[in-house]
Amino acid sequence: MSILVIGTVAFDSLETPYGKAERVIGGSGTYISWAASYFYQPIFLQSIVGEDFPESEIDALENRGVITSGLEIVEGKKSFFWAGRYHENMNSRDTLITELNVLADFDPKLPEDYKQCKYIMLGNLTPEIQLNVLNQLTQKPKLVVLDTMNFWMDIALDGLKEVIKKADVLTLNDEEARQLSGEFSLVKAARVIHKMGPKYLIIKKGEHGALLFSEGHIFFAPALPLSQVFDPTGAGDTFAGGFIGYLAKTGDLSFENMKRAVIFGSAMASFCVESFSIDRMKNLDMVQINDRVKEFIELVRFDTDLA
Amino acid sequence: MSILVIGTVAFDSLETPYGKAERVIGGSGTYISWAASYFYQPIFLQSIVGEDFPESEIDALENRGVITSGLEIVEGKKSFFWAGRYHENMNSRDTLITELNVLADFDPKLPEDYKQCKYIMLGNLTPEIQLNVLNQLTQKPKLVVLDTMNFWMDIALDGLKEVIKKADVLTLNDEEARQLSGEFSLVKAARVIHKMGPKYLIIKKGEHGALLFSEGHIFFAPALPLSQVFDPTGAGDTFAGGFIGYLAKTGDLSFENMKRAVIFGSAMASFCVESFSIDRMKNLDMVQINDRVKEFIELVRFDTDLA
Repeated sequence: MSILVIGTVAFDSLETPYGKAERVIGGSGTYISWAASYFYQPIFLQSIVGEDFPESEIDALENRGVITSGLEIVEGKKSFFWAGRYHENMNSRDTLITELNVLADFDPKLPEDYKQCKYIMLGNLTPEIQLNVLNQLTQKPKLVVLDTMNFWMDIALDGLKEVIKKADVLTLNDEEARQLSGEFSLVKAARVIHKMGPKYLIIKKGEHGALLFSEGHIFFAPALPLSQVFDPTGAGDTFAGGFIGYLAKTGDLSFENMKRAVIFGSAMASFCVESFSIDRMKNLDMVQINDRVKEFIELVRFDTDLA
Repeated sequence: MSILVIGTVAFDSLETPYGKAERVIGGSGTYISWAASYFYQPIFLQSIVGEDFPESEIDALENRGVITSGLEIVEGKKSFFWAGRYHENMNSRDTLITELNVLADFDPKLPEDYKQCKYIMLGNLTPEIQLNVLNQLTQKPKLVVLDTMNFWMDIALDGLKEVIKKADVLTLNDEEARQLSGEFSLVKAARVIHKMGPKYLIIKKGEHGALLFSEGHIFFAPALPLSQVFDPTGAGDTFAGGFIGYLAKTGDLSFENMKRAVIFGSAMASFCVESFSIDRMKNLDMVQINDRVKEFIELVRFDTDLA
């Protein structure tokens, strides 16, 4: 039932209204792996870094049950680097620098033990790489979760549609769901996207929560109102990590259990934004996570005599 | 336990991506009264119209248990008129025309039987008029719900703060809560606003739902994802009408019951946006309303072994 994670392992420089962080640890593969590791181990991480990536960070992942034999380290090159500045509302940001570095050559070759994973988390990368990974699997996976972004809709829509066809769960934000479907109403957008392949669609709305769609069913998970969102970087990846980790742990792919997985994913994301980088992800335990989930339960709980 | 409603009774011309409506019935007092009437009667409506306002619409309100002896009809003058155009996202709109007409002279003098109402709904008007109404009450009300908007924060902040001090529940949208409090985080904004007077704060987020804050407690009510939002005009007022109507009906001002009132208000708002003007409000019954509330229950329901 192991989890395969593919995504970036990288450095970020961040500026938010609350502070600055220079060249801290980031990347979708990093956030996903950390979040998932609280629910399920081992996790097989496939990614690429340069010689500048700290060994201690790889060790920290290994200590969390993350297998890194598929994490390629390229001598003489640098890791992927992204710098961005968040606006006051934290929902929008400007990219200041993108240095692809090793990511430009990323052509993942899965180690043998990776190829039998049952839960596949395709972090945001080119659709070509995502497809390439799926094609290397030697067993039919139990669940493929796909994350992507508007950038690939703009420049690689055909490839993206091909990988979407193979995904069981697609995660997008609301604007991306609208762009991909051509529908403004998210209910209509979900119908269009279901027809592209995925049985489940998760629309992430940041501070406004997340919607889980399956044909004929909708579930809404709120975001926890926080006194301070310190740094939203990685929140979507952390959500995805918590989501797939919870599903792998429980082995139950019913809609009822998907709802729980969305709540656990949202709880993990609510921790992620409390500090820069993966700092908060490194200092968690199941008591804290369960307590956070109880806050979600309380947030939406009401009783009527109608139920 | 009667409800006093003060607000506009007016004409709107609307343009949305889905159609146009010319000089249809609108106004905060109209939406509030229609929505509240499904929960509690009689409702005492205080407002002002010109001689152009159709008698049949006043009769329709009377037939819903809305007392209109405080609805002043000014001969030789026209009713308040607003024309607006909604953007694709329906969350923002441009005002095309505002003709105050009779509203410029609105100086409400409550009829005697209005002065003993226990549930007071102050629709969005100048803070001066809202205060003036409160000062005419001869008995201490059980609940004062206040709606307002950013416009009064810009031009009449001192008067607004005075009426806010006397409100038990304040309703605002998220941008207005931020403007009034000077805090970006809604959790922090709520703390600041509680100190201004209101024990309860409702932050309306349109398609993203609503938050109810009381000191130390937060409740989140989602908005129902709809295939089509036809016309959002009056949704906030309809919400407020359903909210105060439900509270007057139940006579219970506990936080638990306020949560239910927020859900019933949200359900009413979800009907309102399904057609232009008050069309949908005129064709409802409690079976439909309860069925809609059940959809809200289902939308956020999940079970864990943590609760």
